[in-house]
Amino acid sequence: MTVQGLADQFSLGDLAQRLGVELRGDASILISGMATLGGAGPGQLSFLANPQYRSQLQGTRAAAVIIHPDLAAECPVASLISTNPYLTYARASQLFDRRPRQPEGIHPAAIVADDVVLGQGCRIGPRVVIEAGVVLGDRVEIGPGSVIGAGCRIGNDCLLHANVTLYYGVVMGERCVLQSSVVIGGDGFGFAPAQGRWHKIAQLGGVRIGDDVEIGASTTIDRGALKDTIIGNNVILDNQIQIAHNVEIGDGTAIAGCTGIAGSTKIGKHCTIAGAVGIAGHLEIADRVHLTMRSAITKSISEPGSYSSGTAMSTTAEWRKNAARFRQLDEMARKIRSLEQRLKALEPPDQA
Amino acid sequence: MTVQGLADQFSLGDLAQRLGVELRGDASILISGMATLGGAGPGQLSFLANPQYRSQLQGTRAAAVIIHPDLAAECPVASLISTNPYLTYARASQLFDRRPRQPEGIHPAAIVADDVVLGQGCRIGPRVVIEAGVVLGDRVEIGPGSVIGAGCRIGNDCLLHANVTLYYGVVMGERCVLQSSVVIGGDGFGFAPAQGRWHKIAQLGGVRIGDDVEIGASTTIDRGALKDTIIGNNVILDNQIQIAHNVEIGDGTAIAGCTGIAGSTKIGKHCTIAGAVGIAGHLEIADRVHLTMRSAITKSISEPGSYSSGTAMSTTAEWRKNAARFRQLDEMARKIRSLEQRLKALEPPDQA
Amino acid sequence: MTVQGLADQFSLGDLAQRLGVELRGDASILISGMATLGGAGPGQLSFLANPQYRSQLQGTRAAAVIIHPDLAAECPVASLISTNPYLTYARASQLFDRRPRQPEGIHPAAIVADDVVLGQGCRIGPRVVIEAGVVLGDRVEIGPGSVIGAGCRIGNDCLLHANVTLYYGVVMGERCVLQSSVVIGGDGFGFAPAQGRWHKIAQLGGVRIGDDVEIGASTTIDRGALKDTIIGNNVILDNQIQIAHNVEIGDGTAIAGCTGIAGSTKIGKHCTIAGAVGIAGHLEIADRVHLTMRSAITKSISEPGSYSSGTAMSTTAEWRKNAARFRQLDEMARKIRSLEQRLKALEPPDQA
Repeated sequence: MTVQGLADQFSLGDLAQRLGVELRGDASILISGMATLGGAGPGQLSFLANPQYRSQLQGTRAAAVIIHPDLAAECPVASLISTNPYLTYARASQLFDRRPRQPEGIHPAAIVADDVVLGQGCRIGPRVVIEAGVVLGDRVEIGPGSVIGAGCRIGNDCLLHANVTLYYGVVMGERCVLQSSVVIGGDGFGFAPAQGRWHKIAQLGGVRIGDDVEIGASTTIDRGALKDTIIGNNVILDNQIQIAHNVEIGDGTAIAGCTGIAGSTKIGKHCTIAGAVGIAGHLEIADRVHLTMRSAITKSISEPGSYSSGTAMSTTAEWRKNAARFRQLDEMARKIRSLEQRLKALEPPDQA
Repeated sequence: MTVQGLADQFSLGDLAQRLGVELRGDASILISGMATLGGAGPGQLSFLANPQYRSQLQGTRAAAVIIHPDLAAECPVASLISTNPYLTYARASQLFDRRPRQPEGIHPAAIVADDVVLGQGCRIGPRVVIEAGVVLGDRVEIGPGSVIGAGCRIGNDCLLHANVTLYYGVVMGERCVLQSSVVIGGDGFGFAPAQGRWHKIAQLGGVRIGDDVEIGASTTIDRGALKDTIIGNNVILDNQIQIAHNVEIGDGTAIAGCTGIAGSTKIGKHCTIAGAVGIAGHLEIADRVHLTMRSAITKSISEPGSYSSGTAMSTTAEWRKNAARFRQLDEMARKIRSLEQRLKALEPPDQA
Repeated sequence: MTVQGLADQFSLGDLAQRLGVELRGDASILISGMATLGGAGPGQLSFLANPQYRSQLQGTRAAAVIIHPDLAAECPVASLISTNPYLTYARASQLFDRRPRQPEGIHPAAIVADDVVLGQGCRIGPRVVIEAGVVLGDRVEIGPGSVIGAGCRIGNDCLLHANVTLYYGVVMGERCVLQSSVVIGGDGFGFAPAQGRWHKIAQLGGVRIGDDVEIGASTTIDRGALKDTIIGNNVILDNQIQIAHNVEIGDGTAIAGCTGIAGSTKIGKHCTIAGAVGIAGHLEIADRVHLTMRSAITKSISEPGSYSSGTAMSTTAEWRKNAARFRQLDEMARKIRSLEQRLKALEPPDQA
């Protein structure tokens, strides 16, 4: 187990250079970590991206703040000037990441088939199993207990954390990150009913994953029935997401935790799908669609925009009354129509 | 790692014989795989089961099509005639399944307790742990990293993929398939509250699973508190399903992904439960009930039929207006009633 | 593999003493297990906690029943008298737990870094990986295949079942129980968007877990972005729960299966959150809040009490009619208002 080869601390001047931003303040200040504006102490770098936290700027004890040029004058400490402080924070965070990595090479307790092809600088942890015919790019890191099925192809710089499972034949691009307990390539849920029984349909397709994809802990992506399940480039998936067979997800789409997507649905590019959304099968969702939390999507969406379903929260006592009325909604609508007609009959003709 | 002992290709005549269906066309055509009507190329077998795809028949480049006798005359290529084309597709798919299997025997890196009883032809992968007292039937295959707790009994021809976890004492019938990251027999969620604290109730029951059961990736089935949790024969469970302690699921029931079933609920036979449904505890659901996607089931259902809850999707802007009114539903219903009474007072008596 | 060092059976007198309750009946009766009132047979202990089962008391075949003093006169068999029978059942259940435990010591097939500190009486199963710098308290048990990341600290008497994954630096109190496939400390879902791409934010925080915490199978708890994700003392979490980065959960809160909590939300103490609830990010939920099954919580809750959202179940046919009207709700409300005004215009002035 080794720690990433990063310095324990950086001077502000060094940081400004690495991040490609302007420094206002003392370049020799040493920075050893990052924290929120409210939580930062000496030696820590913070950032102001959300205007909501602007009020915390004056009182911050951070050594320096990543800040937009328009607000820089307000900053009571050293500042790193960025027109996109949140992006600069993202980049800076990488410099302070202290995640231990697996040592370079193949751990003696890993089980790697004879014909596996490994690129330069791979890090294969203990108890990893890599089956026959697998090809790994350069600098691939695989955490303890992960299983890479026969014939998988994993691109350069991918990181698979501990206890990930890839079934046979999964193809993945470069720089993907898979969190623990991810399962990719399991059988799609396909059965033919006949005479009161379910008959399993062998899932002959595979899974293809693009570059720069993130897959959260315990997320599952099934292999296709006949064609492949496809995850585009730079798709980011949170934890506990279920992606059924033959789903296709377009480049740059982000999906939050606990969302489920049923079979053969196509999601467009640059969509943002909130948590616990359910999307039925065989739909097409256009590019740049936003779905709010817990929506149930049962029809295709052809226009960009934001879509929702569900009801808003209230106290259970109030909710009970209103939910009971939901079952009378159609009757209520009919009553309103009847009232309108009866009222019209009473009103003088010129009012109609 | 070996590939299943299947031919690389089959002649159409051979296929017709293996599938028990009539062939119309050249029996010597060689088939090497399967594909959709639209996606198939030379050497590939396709099928027409859903009338929606009938228009693709004329243009198909498939070598042959599995088709209903009523439509066979329309088929421009060779055909395999079946009164249930989808079932015949399911059977044919098994012939073209190229899933690599674990080699026969016990991998040297598996850890198998001395008293474990293995049937004929088992395939135990690397890093599998099989604890004391386990009994495996014939031809059981267990993928890398799976853990079989003490005293489990697994019937003939079961397939457990990689990284499955069975707690102690799980009993399973024949021909079951468990996808990766399945957990069976974990503690049910039972606690007694007393003086502001939760006191754990040991879960003394087990889990019993029938024959021909499929369990999807990352699905969890808890052991019972006192009695067993029971999964009937030919139950098929998709990914990421949660089944709590003492649930019973009747034979032939199918459940789609992300559905959760709370403790002690009994689900009938031959139910079809869509994705992301939530079913409260201590309910009884009759046989042949269908629950639509994302329904919340809070009462027992005594009659077969289809049941739903939730609201339909709209744009977020429209939804906001309507969802706000949901909280006024009871008030709206009262206003309608008041309007009816006031209107009645104005109307001539003979109209009432 | 050893079985817990408990007697196979206890005399009723011994049980009464161990549980600290009064015995009415023959102290020499031998008890070998527990069962429900309806399911119990000779040699089994049962309990009556829920008044709903009172009718089963007369017919019980249990050897003895844990029962409230007010009902003890009705008990046809021996009884153990408790003012909280459910709590006494919880305690008794522990005596009859036959869960096999890992043998004491480190299994030869475990991989434990040289500098790991183990307390007294630890039980480390086969294929466990414990990375550098980990500190385990006394009597910690870790099941096969679990991975403990570098620098984790696990308190006395914790039990981690098979195939659990802890990322680096997770800190956990005493007497915690983690079911299989739990993942703690995975990266929070943090990305900065810029020019149509997602840029990963390194997750620099950790996860801190209190004492007496239960975490159900396949539940995921992400590490914090800058600060830690925090789970209080005696929090109990069911299966398949997703807890995002920087969430804080107060002492004694219970959460049922399939619930998801988005980033930075603070849940109070002693809350009870039912299954499949979704809670948006950056909210504050007060102490002693109850959320009913499948609620969508999109606003902070400042007062104790019960809260809900959603609609009640009906047949799909009825639901379709009502759900269609949901989309007309705002229009319906406007029509009611219009009807009120038109009616008022017709009514004699004194009625208005």
